[in-house]
Amino acid sequence: MTRVLVGNDFSEDVRTDRGWTGWWVQRLAWFAADGDVLVLPAAVDEDFLAYVTALTGVDRASLTVVVPPGGEDSMLTPGRLADPAFLAELRSAVGDRPVTEIFSLWPDATVARLARALGAPSALAGHGFVDQGGGPLTNSKSLFRTLAGGAGVPVPAGAVATSKEVAETVIVELLAGGEPVMVKHDFLSGGHGNEILSTTDGIRPIGARRAVTVPDRAAVRAYLDERWEWLTGGGRSRPVVEQYHRDSSAYFTEYRISDEGVELTGDGELLSAPYAVGQVMPCVGLEPEVMRALVDGGRELCESLHAMGYRGMCATDAIVTPRREVLFTEYNGRITGSTHIYGVLGKKIIGDGYGTDRIILERVWPEGWSVDSFTDALERLTAAGHAYDPATRTGVLFTNAFDGSHGVMYCIAAPDLNTAWSLDRQLGSLFARKSTR
Amino acid sequence: MTRVLVGNDFSEDVRTDRGWTGWWVQRLAWFAADGDVLVLPAAVDEDFLAYVTALTGVDRASLTVVVPPGGEDSMLTPGRLADPAFLAELRSAVGDRPVTEIFSLWPDATVARLARALGAPSALAGHGFVDQGGGPLTNSKSLFRTLAGGAGVPVPAGAVATSKEVAETVIVELLAGGEPVMVKHDFLSGGHGNEILSTTDGIRPIGARRAVTVPDRAAVRAYLDERWEWLTGGGRSRPVVEQYHRDSSAYFTEYRISDEGVELTGDGELLSAPYAVGQVMPCVGLEPEVMRALVDGGRELCESLHAMGYRGMCATDAIVTPRREVLFTEYNGRITGSTHIYGVLGKKIIGDGYGTDRIILERVWPEGWSVDSFTDALERLTAAGHAYDPATRTGVLFTNAFDGSHGVMYCIAAPDLNTAWSLDRQLGSLFARKSTR
Repeated sequence: MTRVLVGNDFSEDVRTDRGWTGWWVQRLAWFAADGDVLVLPAAVDEDFLAYVTALTGVDRASLTVVVPPGGEDSMLTPGRLADPAFLAELRSAVGDRPVTEIFSLWPDATVARLARALGAPSALAGHGFVDQGGGPLTNSKSLFRTLAGGAGVPVPAGAVATSKEVAETVIVELLAGGEPVMVKHDFLSGGHGNEILSTTDGIRPIGARRAVTVPDRAAVRAYLDERWEWLTGGGRSRPVVEQYHRDSSAYFTEYRISDEGVELTGDGELLSAPYAVGQVMPCVGLEPEVMRALVDGGRELCESLHAMGYRGMCATDAIVTPRREVLFTEYNGRITGSTHIYGVLGKKIIGDGYGTDRIILERVWPEGWSVDSFTDALERLTAAGHAYDPATRTGVLFTNAFDGSHGVMYCIAAPDLNTAWSLDRQLGSLFARKSTR
Repeated sequence: MTRVLVGNDFSEDVRTDRGWTGWWVQRLAWFAADGDVLVLPAAVDEDFLAYVTALTGVDRASLTVVVPPGGEDSMLTPGRLADPAFLAELRSAVGDRPVTEIFSLWPDATVARLARALGAPSALAGHGFVDQGGGPLTNSKSLFRTLAGGAGVPVPAGAVATSKEVAETVIVELLAGGEPVMVKHDFLSGGHGNEILSTTDGIRPIGARRAVTVPDRAAVRAYLDERWEWLTGGGRSRPVVEQYHRDSSAYFTEYRISDEGVELTGDGELLSAPYAVGQVMPCVGLEPEVMRALVDGGRELCESLHAMGYRGMCATDAIVTPRREVLFTEYNGRITGSTHIYGVLGKKIIGDGYGTDRIILERVWPEGWSVDSFTDALERLTAAGHAYDPATRTGVLFTNAFDGSHGVMYCIAAPDLNTAWSLDRQLGSLFARKSTR
């Protein structure tokens, strides 16, 4: 019995904007159990792996890490995952143990092929769906809107822009209502694929690249003429046009979709300024009816994906408007940037108190902070007395490997959000780059 | 109470290859009931409408036909269906009757907008799904394969080609098995979007544009370099690559997907030489286990579309190989070219005996035959004594309006297929173009 864990990332055919993701996918380590085989695009950060396994109680020596040949600075491409030398090494790592589970961060058809190459297609949940191109669909903003429409899950007013003409019609109609409009690339995430259109200046772009002023139809047309190629990923996907609700908050609910059905696994708030800067898990201070709308709407979307044959994790995102409407904005059918935080750091490291007497504030490494390595970060943190303490179940936990240039993503376990933000401010003195260094 | 019937066709954003489809969508007339309002892209062929209503027993005078301004030679584009003058005329035709049903040949978001403009979104079944871009998905060969993979419905070996590199890998793998490969455009139909690749010459292209010889990987790559732009519709869709099974037959089963569930409505054989040339309805001479596999597999696919929120008709196509394997090849979520044949001409005009003592052979108007008008065709047919006779429930029925240049699609009601083909051969002497005319 053994599991193969694949540290892949967004398919190349969906996104080409991410650059090197070797460090980001090392969060795979949080999901490892004794005896697992980890497939990574680049050598593992051993300091990070030692840190993780010490916390999860996994025997590092029982793990095997396999890196396919062909580019330490590239993703796990179809070519690398099909490399004969890699497959031989992987088979050797597995040995004569049956492969009982194949787990990947991203539901790529290449992983389905890998499962077949290992003679274990059924070890990959939802093999047929993934094998026949399902992965991009569970991360498509256009299909999300179609399924939401089909299930009657509330979304911001708008449409799937099946053509530039449709986009123009819908944008002009929505702007006539007096509110700004968000135009979204089908696949880009974290706000990087979104732009806001407004008839007037002065919109602050939250969760978007920028705000563009389009006083009239001619300006909308000019915008689309200029940006259509980008918005459609060179013609490969369909952007979404929707009303933009200012001063909204954003939340996620995440589910496990298995043969048995759909199970809520976690939830939290998504912080943007303007891009993703962190998360609070679980949701704090939401009215019960708002929380229920988040959980129920997300579950309905996951029921649709379940019926289509998808098996795996899916996070559904929604905004809560100042009028406390819950409007869903996208889904992400993959191991998200939240899964390891609430699922492992929360439920396993913090344990039973997670979500009752402890919350987690997760932070993207801030601009202007700098460390030299994972060990450097950990040493400074420990020396300052801010490292996570299992006795108090509070403090700072690093969540990923060194990003190769500046820092390490981290989160803070605390009894409440004020305490967490307070500790976060103190980290600045530890990590802020000195002009004299 | 009134119904609005919309004679639209494939979305412009999906297909631009069809040219003028004004005649093809006039089959809408078969679905009309007393009091209905028909929206057509061009003036109705009154001779055809008189013929249809005489057979269906509908009062022609109770029907209203509305043609939006803006191009008698174009489809019902988003612009035409949103035209204010058209909407005023349509509202006037509806009057103060509530709109109880909006029926369209093709599930286009434009029809969802029209339903809202009429203040009757719920009169369009599955409004939310169609409104948010669901229509193209119910007619996508790539999503078809994903859902088949998800449901475990058998399909020919192959993959969704999410990139040119994936296409090359899969084509080379499949060709290595010694059999030809079919490459399919995501949306084109009737075989017009398919090409066959083979390592050797001499493949007869059935259900495909042509056969291409690709002796090695370099030739496959050169083929893809040349054809990728076309295969992806200029980058807008994902082609499918699958094993080509020579000497197979092709069948459809069609279903009504409603809030209540999925109901089988009809079935038949699809004849190609090499493009669609006709159909036999219902299926004749199939082994019970093959028929069961067709019906069950198609139903599973429709269950997935039902769960996604689609409401309407869907035909699933499958091949039956010489080894009697049933392998599904596509679905078509729309009013197909079969729906009016089995659903109205079969079940209503022929009546109870349809499928028991009567079958239908449907024929595309052959090359080289010619008539001047619908009336010309009907007069010649009647004079020859071959027109459909309700007393014997046999003979020739025209199924659509005059195509504007050569002929009229027709079908033959007969006790068996041999009798139908025999009558079909006699029609040549009625309609074959004389060199002296």
